[in-house]
Amino acid sequence: MAYDGTDYVGWQRQPNGRSIQAIVEDALAPVEGGPVTVVGAGRTDAGVHALGQVASARLTSRIGPDAVERALNARLPPDVRVRGVTEAPPDFHARYSASSKLYRYRIRQAPTAGAFEHRYAWHVPQALDITAMDAAGRALVGRHDFASFQGSGSEVETTERTLLALRVGETAAAGDGDEQGRLITVEVEADGFLRHMVRTIVGTLVEVGLGRWGPDEVAVALATRDRRRAGPTAPAHGLFLVRVRY
Amino acid sequence: MAYDGTDYVGWQRQPNGRSIQAIVEDALAPVEGGPVTVVGAGRTDAGVHALGQVASARLTSRIGPDAVERALNARLPPDVRVRGVTEAPPDFHARYSASSKLYRYRIRQAPTAGAFEHRYAWHVPQALDITAMDAAGRALVGRHDFASFQGSGSEVETTERTLLALRVGETAAAGDGDEQGRLITVEVEADGFLRHMVRTIVGTLVEVGLGRWGPDEVAVALATRDRRRAGPTAPAHGLFLVRVRY
Repeated sequence: MAYDGTDYVGWQRQPNGRSIQAIVEDALAPVEGGPVTVVGAGRTDAGVHALGQVASARLTSRIGPDAVERALNARLPPDVRVRGVTEAPPDFHARYSASSKLYRYRIRQAPTAGAFEHRYAWHVPQALDITAMDAAGRALVGRHDFASFQGSGSEVETTERTLLALRVGETAAAGDGDEQGRLITVEVEADGFLRHMVRTIVGTLVEVGLGRWGPDEVAVALATRDRRRAGPTAPAHGLFLVRVRY
Repeated sequence: MAYDGTDYVGWQRQPNGRSIQAIVEDALAPVEGGPVTVVGAGRTDAGVHALGQVASARLTSRIGPDAVERALNARLPPDVRVRGVTEAPPDFHARYSASSKLYRYRIRQAPTAGAFEHRYAWHVPQALDITAMDAAGRALVGRHDFASFQGSGSEVETTERTLLALRVGETAAAGDGDEQGRLITVEVEADGFLRHMVRTIVGTLVEVGLGRWGPDEVAVALATRDRRRAGPTAPAHGLFLVRVRY
């Protein structure tokens, strides 16, 4: 699934506000002829987008995958789209069966913010040293305790995760002429993510890019396992769930 | 100026609804210390966007262009941005002084609509022959009476305009992986535009691209000077005012 998260409270169903999960479950209910629970691979926060979210649901109706896709896209709002539906093995679970997830964070580095990108990128007016950001990010790759990069308010059994890749790069302009400056992307792939982990990594790397942090301080912050030692949390609207592997 | 027109009733101030002109005039009033009238080069319709709108205003305050730019961007919402402010000669008028305007129309040709592009492109599920569209569009270039391509409800002295260029092309994907299919752009440059003129041209060229119209029928529709002979009006949300020349 792909969705523009701007107008949603996030993936997860909540008592107040429109969630992606709720609108997908509501769109699937008439297909099933009763309530359905939909599980998402990534529980994206409010304002976070998806290009390749994966969700699973257990249906008893005998309607085929193509018909489910058409029915969903007919019922879902235009900012939430199903890109494909396939049958999965009985024990498949979108979250627990995932082996890794890839997130992309977009930063627009330009003197002034753009009229279009404010929904889809973090605007940073100052120059960023992306070589320094990329080098500092390498310290995070591998199996580590990422407690320093976990947002408050989450309870998990372990804060250890394996970061498979972290790339800081620059995407060439689309040539559409709509935005000025540089588009910098931070891609992070891991076997799992803690709450706000990508956004805290990005917020920390931007400190490095601005020259406020030295290149080795990211590794130090990681070793302390103390959230207060990492950088600020980057805003939600620059973040995209790109791909889930199984 | 650049703006995302999605949440606006268009450029022109209206009794009901939020217009770009009104929010710019309201943002400029404290700078001037009183009401200001802002003239836009193109009176974009509801939902139409701008990458390079030009607007002029007559100020008596002695505040410099850079300070005006900063003050405006501080007061304007994030989907409306001023990209630059300069002093103009006393007789400059953003609309009447313009020698030509360039509009770009974006079409996303893909089996399913995208979650992000529904605000910024017209989704056409069927294959389009862009070579045929480009060839048919050439019949419109030059000085013509464009009455066939004028939306109802407008009163103008003459429906003659000079179309300087019309290009149908395909833009390479930005590589960001967010959208499927082809991005087709129609760029139209003219010394002036009638109401809905670009959108009616695009709607007509799409009929050609779908194979419903023969390549010569566009020239025939132009010659009749009858709106009923042209194709449908393409939706507003694919249209961008790109550049104004003086």
